[in-house]
Order: sequence, then C-alpha cells, then structure tokens
Amino acid sequence: MAYKAKIRVTLRPSILDVQGKAAQHALANLGYTSVESVRIGKYMEVAIEEQTAEDAGRVCTEICQKLLSNPVMEDFTFELEPVN
Amino acid sequence: MAYKAKIRVTLRPSILDVQGKAAQHALANLGYTSVESVRIGKYMEVAIEEQTAEDAGRVCTEICQKLLSNPVMEDFTFELEPVN
Repeated sequence: MAYKAKIRVTLRPSILDVQGKAAQHALANLGYTSVESVRIGKYMEVAIEEQTAEDAGRVCTEICQKLLSNPVMEDFTFELEPVN
Repeated sequence: MAYKAKIRVTLRPSILDVQGKAAQHALANLGYTSVESVRIGKYMEVAIEEQTAEDAGRVCTEICQKLLSNPVMEDFTFELEPVN
C-alpha cells in the first residue's frame, strides 16, 4: 500500500538560525516590521510503499534519523497518510 | 496580537527536484527501497505581531510572494495560529 509522509525538520530552539535572521532583516528592510522572527527548516514529502501504516511509520522514522535530519541540531515530526 | 505562521514552500510538480532524487537514491543505497520518491521544500515558522488575523494573513501572503518563495518555481501554503 502507498503512503505519503509529510516531514518537517526544524532547527532545535537553542540553535541560532542565521538564515532565518537574514530573512527577518530583509523583511524589515522591505517594511515588514511586524515580522518578529523567522526560523527556516525543511519540508519533505516522501512516498513509501509498505504493507501497513506501522511499517511505513517505522521506515519514515528511520530515514529521518539516518539521512533526512541531523539529530544533533534538528528535530523532526511527520504525518503519514494513505494514498489511493 | 501575536500570531505564528507555519509556512510550507514546495517545488511545483512540473519542476525536477534534483536534491530529492539524490536523497531517494541515497536511501535506496541504504536499503530503503520502499521509498519511491522524495521531494524537498522549505518549512518556515514566522512570528507576526498584528492587530487581527486578517492583517497577519495578509502580511504572510505578501512575504511569501516577495521573499520566502520563488513564485516561478514554487508554491506555498500556510497555517496561521494565535500565540498566547
């Protein structure tokens, strides 16, 4: 069965987000002073073909830990949904 | 009032995702052959201080169009939530 995983990888709150700070300053220069902070992470959509949702969830957790995120600096969350 | 916008920026379906293809091949080499496709985008959390949710949504749409996404190649969606 086919599943789609929607994965969000975010920098841990204690890690300085230089890219996000740069975006925030650029927005302030454009006049968007109501934007108080920007934090930038990754969003991934992964198609997984497994028998059960449990198997797909296990694969998704493993690939996030091993390749798609850096566990030292980043956290990840995902939602799994079946695809018709 | 403070709002948090959770923004997803994704490559349009017609655009080849080279980074995603590389990740998929790396996963196949690690043995995760049930992963059939990977598409990589950006996930951003933006804190916005505006009077109303309408104002915050308008600011969010504008900053996505002007700075946070490339409208030629990317789509964006966001959810807005009030912060206590």
